[in-house]
Amino acid sequence: MALTQVSSNKCCDGYQKVFEHDSSELKCKMKFGIYLPPKAESSKCPVLYWLSGLTCTEQNFITKAGAQQAASENGIIIVAPDTSPRGCNIEGEEESWDFGTGAGFYVNATQEPWKTNYRMYAYVTEESVSAFAPICNPIQCAWGQKAFSGYLGSDKSTWELYDATVLAESYSGPELDILIDQGRDDQFLSSSQLLPDNLIAACSKKKIPVVFRLQQGYDHSYYFIFSFINDHIKHHAKYLNA
Amino acid sequence: MALTQVSSNKCCDGYQKVFEHDSSELKCKMKFGIYLPPKAESSKCPVLYWLSGLTCTEQNFITKAGAQQAASENGIIIVAPDTSPRGCNIEGEEESWDFGTGAGFYVNATQEPWKTNYRMYAYVTEESVSAFAPICNPIQCAWGQKAFSGYLGSDKSTWELYDATVLAESYSGPELDILIDQGRDDQFLSSSQLLPDNLIAACSKKKIPVVFRLQQGYDHSYYFIFSFINDHIKHHAKYLNA
Repeated sequence: MALTQVSSNKCCDGYQKVFEHDSSELKCKMKFGIYLPPKAESSKCPVLYWLSGLTCTEQNFITKAGAQQAASENGIIIVAPDTSPRGCNIEGEEESWDFGTGAGFYVNATQEPWKTNYRMYAYVTEESVSAFAPICNPIQCAWGQKAFSGYLGSDKSTWELYDATVLAESYSGPELDILIDQGRDDQFLSSSQLLPDNLIAACSKKKIPVVFRLQQGYDHSYYFIFSFINDHIKHHAKYLNA
Repeated sequence: MALTQVSSNKCCDGYQKVFEHDSSELKCKMKFGIYLPPKAESSKCPVLYWLSGLTCTEQNFITKAGAQQAASENGIIIVAPDTSPRGCNIEGEEESWDFGTGAGFYVNATQEPWKTNYRMYAYVTEESVSAFAPICNPIQCAWGQKAFSGYLGSDKSTWELYDATVLAESYSGPELDILIDQGRDDQFLSSSQLLPDNLIAACSKKKIPVVFRLQQGYDHSYYFIFSFINDHIKHHAKYLNA
């Protein structure tokens, strides 16, 4: 994988960089942000993957979340990929804000015309678990149903592979420790797009530990993420540096 | 002054808001960001004014600088005005990135066609002093000469009112304590637009205390500001909460 450096800015004693590369999975050029803490100059550091949400590019997290301070202090590398293939000239890719460009939904699409490029599940890898205002049960909400029927087709059994609540119901892997922050004034919570209660119910049935913090007054913006990002970096550092 | 709230997001236990108002000084609508720390709900808090640089709106600082955490902890309100009038339909206002829209240079313009709207000095008020990579001696650099000749005309004696180095040379006000951070790899430092050495020389002649920190490897971006913003908020809090 040949990498081209797009930018490099010193930040909190380390470097915030952006690289571009040709993705063999997605068959297009992709950018990602990577924060290298100062510790990375002299020793190996664990990597945390930040997966942004609808409409984001690799820029939103690296400019707005303010994660670099805690990453610098805890010696964590943060990789922030883009959220979908871009510029693939697929018919309809720019038509809606919640499907196509900026809305890859981290699935491997199986339907035309998406299946060649929209393979975000294969593109990203997730290590340890925490989340901000996640879409917890996409097969039960409007966003998820639109995305999954478009990318995966009408057979709903294929949708379940990408639904955290369904996955939790049948989980039998290593022990988890999940931290979720959710703004109580998040407009997408009240419009039933996020459905965290379903995930929590599934986790408690399976005795998967979840710390779910419903944060009064907070919405769905990066101001919410900025307010609690330090807690999440420390949560991951506890395991990644163990 | 009637205020219209444009947005309000809970952030670090307080609120990051944006307001719009009709400015009588600038004769146009202006937006500004204001961060209200939680302490402001129950008691008076001091106000810090953040004046952004070339090309910025009120958004750059509030989304990228990460100042809210320290402002919340120190009980400081931060007001972040826009950097120029906008949409005044002045001929040439959109022609260059370093003059006109986004480049008000905090002067009261005296020249046509700018003098009606471009009165940013009157619009903003500054309390206590610190700076990131400032244009220290604008009458000696290309940016300043372009802006001042356009806004103020060819009589250079009128320029000196807006030049920190000239002002320091004749300063006789209350005691100051100036903190300046400057990236050593800032492209505008090496291209002689910022000239901090001239300001430092003037201050040391007048025995004005300046802490000037030349930060190795840092550039002119918000990643640089994000890295050191906490030190600046604390610097102001020391005096504002005294």
